[in-house]
Amino acid sequence: MKRVVLIRHGESQWNKENRFTGWTDVDLTEKGIEEAAAAGKTLKEEGYNFTLAYTSYLKRAVKTLNIILDKLDLDWIPVEKSWRLNEKHYGALQGLNKAETAEKYGEEKVLEWRRSYEVKSPALKPDDHRSPYLDNRYKGISQEELPLTESLKDTVGRILPYWNNTIFPSVKEHNDIIVAAHGNSLRGIVKHLKDISDEEIVSLNIPTGIPYAFEFNDKYELVKDYFLGDPEKIKALMEAVANQGKKK
Amino acid sequence: MKRVVLIRHGESQWNKENRFTGWTDVDLTEKGIEEAAAAGKTLKEEGYNFTLAYTSYLKRAVKTLNIILDKLDLDWIPVEKSWRLNEKHYGALQGLNKAETAEKYGEEKVLEWRRSYEVKSPALKPDDHRSPYLDNRYKGISQEELPLTESLKDTVGRILPYWNNTIFPSVKEHNDIIVAAHGNSLRGIVKHLKDISDEEIVSLNIPTGIPYAFEFNDKYELVKDYFLGDPEKIKALMEAVANQGKKK
Repeated sequence: MKRVVLIRHGESQWNKENRFTGWTDVDLTEKGIEEAAAAGKTLKEEGYNFTLAYTSYLKRAVKTLNIILDKLDLDWIPVEKSWRLNEKHYGALQGLNKAETAEKYGEEKVLEWRRSYEVKSPALKPDDHRSPYLDNRYKGISQEELPLTESLKDTVGRILPYWNNTIFPSVKEHNDIIVAAHGNSLRGIVKHLKDISDEEIVSLNIPTGIPYAFEFNDKYELVKDYFLGDPEKIKALMEAVANQGKKK
Repeated sequence: MKRVVLIRHGESQWNKENRFTGWTDVDLTEKGIEEAAAAGKTLKEEGYNFTLAYTSYLKRAVKTLNIILDKLDLDWIPVEKSWRLNEKHYGALQGLNKAETAEKYGEEKVLEWRRSYEVKSPALKPDDHRSPYLDNRYKGISQEELPLTESLKDTVGRILPYWNNTIFPSVKEHNDIIVAAHGNSLRGIVKHLKDISDEEIVSLNIPTGIPYAFEFNDKYELVKDYFLGDPEKIKALMEAVANQGKKK
């Protein structure tokens, strides 16, 4: 049996402040750190023994992974980081409070930006201080590939090559793999694995800090998928995520 | 200008208890965590901007590195881990208290084991529960390469191929590189870079948590090397390391 566990990072400072984060490199809150530690504890109890890990270029995902690996005594395993696992790029909305944005543009528009499959939020200017063109960490990546804003479709489009060419092929050599990333980048993987439609994927809410396991048979076909932990807690978390776009 | 910074992990639980650690995967103490954070702060103040990092398979080094990278806002950079950067393997002494061992075998013998270049401490049995043959993390490495004990000479011997074939060639593409490792594995690198004799290397004491910088010119020749931080503090730390082999 082969297993891939997806984990969405714990609460970040801007999750807490209800602001659009995207590629902004904000840190975990104390609660986020605790969520990661709890996920590590669950994975340890369930006997996961990862030999390879993937994460994004953003510290809230990297640190969630580091905390989990430490709880599992697996600090030593190889960790590959890729910008392709980054959160959806929210363009010029990055930094704005979601409730304020809803008041300004209307709840409808915000929900569209956050939850439609093809609509992009307004783009960053290439020379905006938030632009990935000016960020050292993206220096090796061509500007054609680097987004100044993204729709969920765009996010899915840049994640799938990484899933198909890098993560999934490594399942051959590794029984347990963990991927620590973000709400929308993980949606891309789940959409692909479970063949979810463009319409339905926008309402799939992956809770933070809850390990989401996918099992594959020896033909590398998906056999089952499930969250790890208390089912009641998972349901409550998913509802909380769904309510984030609402006005205060 | 190219720079490689070596950093010895901060205090571990067994440093504190004065026990032979070697390949045992003991954790950092609170003090060790603080030392790592202080090193990160120093490196930030000095303007280091690492784009690549190396560390061992042991959590006290991995976590020291993670803390430093976080202080520098460089959580995203690639980190390569290798067993070749592990501490010297102390064989059957691993887990024993240094003062107790000195009382039992004599201070002389302990100093020989700790500080002679060619003498190995008694080896582990291959089926000892501490044996690397039984540890998952070394599964991909042939038993011919894996030690059951080591002299400092052996440690240097297994580090240099990694320095010469992996770390040093990467200086070409990277201006600032950091290597987080252990007292004896870092001795191997320093011995090589500064052409220190077998006799002299045993009395070189690298303090914990103090960044040790090496600068190279555009012909990749070593130009200078220096510790970063308060010179008085560095001197005191080096003397403390030298006194560890003495009876209580």
